[in-house]
Amino acid sequence: MTQAWASGEAGLPIGVFDSGVGGLTVLRALRADMPGENFIYLGDTARLPYGTKSAQTVVRYSLQCAAALIQRGICCLVVACNTASASALDALRAHHPSLPIIGVIEPGAQAAVTASVSQHIAVIATEGTVGGGAYEAAIHRFNPDARVTSRACSLFVSMAEEGWTEGPIAEAVARRYLDPIFRSDDAPDTLVLGCTHFPTLAAAMRAILPKHVSIVDSAATTAAAVLHRLHGATAMHAASGTSESPLPTTLGGVRWLATDGATRFARVGSAFLGETLHADAIEIIDL
Amino acid sequence: MTQAWASGEAGLPIGVFDSGVGGLTVLRALRADMPGENFIYLGDTARLPYGTKSAQTVVRYSLQCAAALIQRGICCLVVACNTASASALDALRAHHPSLPIIGVIEPGAQAAVTASVSQHIAVIATEGTVGGGAYEAAIHRFNPDARVTSRACSLFVSMAEEGWTEGPIAEAVARRYLDPIFRSDDAPDTLVLGCTHFPTLAAAMRAILPKHVSIVDSAATTAAAVLHRLHGATAMHAASGTSESPLPTTLGGVRWLATDGATRFARVGSAFLGETLHADAIEIIDL
Repeated sequence: MTQAWASGEAGLPIGVFDSGVGGLTVLRALRADMPGENFIYLGDTARLPYGTKSAQTVVRYSLQCAAALIQRGICCLVVACNTASASALDALRAHHPSLPIIGVIEPGAQAAVTASVSQHIAVIATEGTVGGGAYEAAIHRFNPDARVTSRACSLFVSMAEEGWTEGPIAEAVARRYLDPIFRSDDAPDTLVLGCTHFPTLAAAMRAILPKHVSIVDSAATTAAAVLHRLHGATAMHAASGTSESPLPTTLGGVRWLATDGATRFARVGSAFLGETLHADAIEIIDL
Repeated sequence: MTQAWASGEAGLPIGVFDSGVGGLTVLRALRADMPGENFIYLGDTARLPYGTKSAQTVVRYSLQCAAALIQRGICCLVVACNTASASALDALRAHHPSLPIIGVIEPGAQAAVTASVSQHIAVIATEGTVGGGAYEAAIHRFNPDARVTSRACSLFVSMAEEGWTEGPIAEAVARRYLDPIFRSDDAPDTLVLGCTHFPTLAAAMRAILPKHVSIVDSAATTAAAVLHRLHGATAMHAASGTSESPLPTTLGGVRWLATDGATRFARVGSAFLGETLHADAIEIIDL
């Protein structure tokens, strides 16, 4: 039944952008949930990472990414980057009021509040996301009494890109970041992976975390939110009599855009996406 | 005597640029060698890192950085970034033929050829520097028969920025990168730190490397090259009768420029510079 909702308003693809390859964990989750849908993915690799940049800069870059995707025709926009979701979602919605725009923070925050028994929630992210306090604010919108402990885990980003996602070093780094949070009497019971790179390291974190701690993967929760949003939109659409289009029978395609370095994008991105990406399939654009 | 050469042509400061804070290890070495000199340092923090970007992009950014410094008046330009030195030095010299321009690669390559007994030299750097092959080419200009083994060590960059420069994790990461190079019968006897971040991790590398391996720190060798270049220039200058200016009695100043994130620049940069940097001393410019 997923496919029945999956062709989007007017058959346009879903636009997804990130500062680089991290958003491919979100795209992977989106494709798993909506296999018939088409996508355009834009990695702003010339200007990555966003996580160490100021909010104003991230807003400017995000508006440029959105404009590049909208110009090519999309039915909705997924901001598959925590830093951009933290800093730029309001500006994006203000500039494009009629386009459905889904970030990665709101769904992760909601899932964390649902998962946590103690309502003491840990969030790990890049420095920019933590500094902006967006997860804390989003969690408090769902439960004003929740407690949030945040920590920037910058090294996880380069470990994910290096492919060092398991083994003794990954676990030692995870311990150094996470033990101070989880090895205390008053520790959180839920960990939000607040950076799209981090799901690739989930197994190493699982190996060193106390067993009762829930891990919330914001890629998976965002895909669920997009599916929900498109479902609603297409349900209304169907009510106006255009539900006759056939179910898609093949996996939808992805159009690949990046702002620099197709070879590196393909190599590092393949691990994030879970399938082989070819450099010559990636169109380099200037923003 | 160092100070006698140190005021530069026409008393202008030395311009130094890098993609971020890494070049501060070069600035630190420059100030140690030329304590009376004034400097302008530009960190292109809005667009860091350069190491994962294409050569064309790095050339474009480097020309913009150089133009910003030249506009403010400099006596020479130090490209304190291995990636920019690898990709952009020829373009910089072509655009500014009368300005002395010193990169970090040539001095490091020369020092490595001098230090190595076996003439088998290892170079560690970012992916961009290794991919461009600039160290290999520079080493071969000094000794065409030298053998070069190169490896990208991306994680060292984020470890340096995180301040995780010593202890078990730093040594485990150093082992993972360096053991495959140095634990063999036919191993190099010299290691070039081909990224300006890496000198902060030199002690961890020293701890795990075979004792006979020489480490070449390109920050220190670049400072020596700049001193040599300015010495020559000022010696000619002195011959034309302008050597009467008094020796400076205080440490020269540094004017700080960055393209984004003064707070982070000051915090992370202090460790690289070896002294406290204040965010309000950093002017944010747009390139």
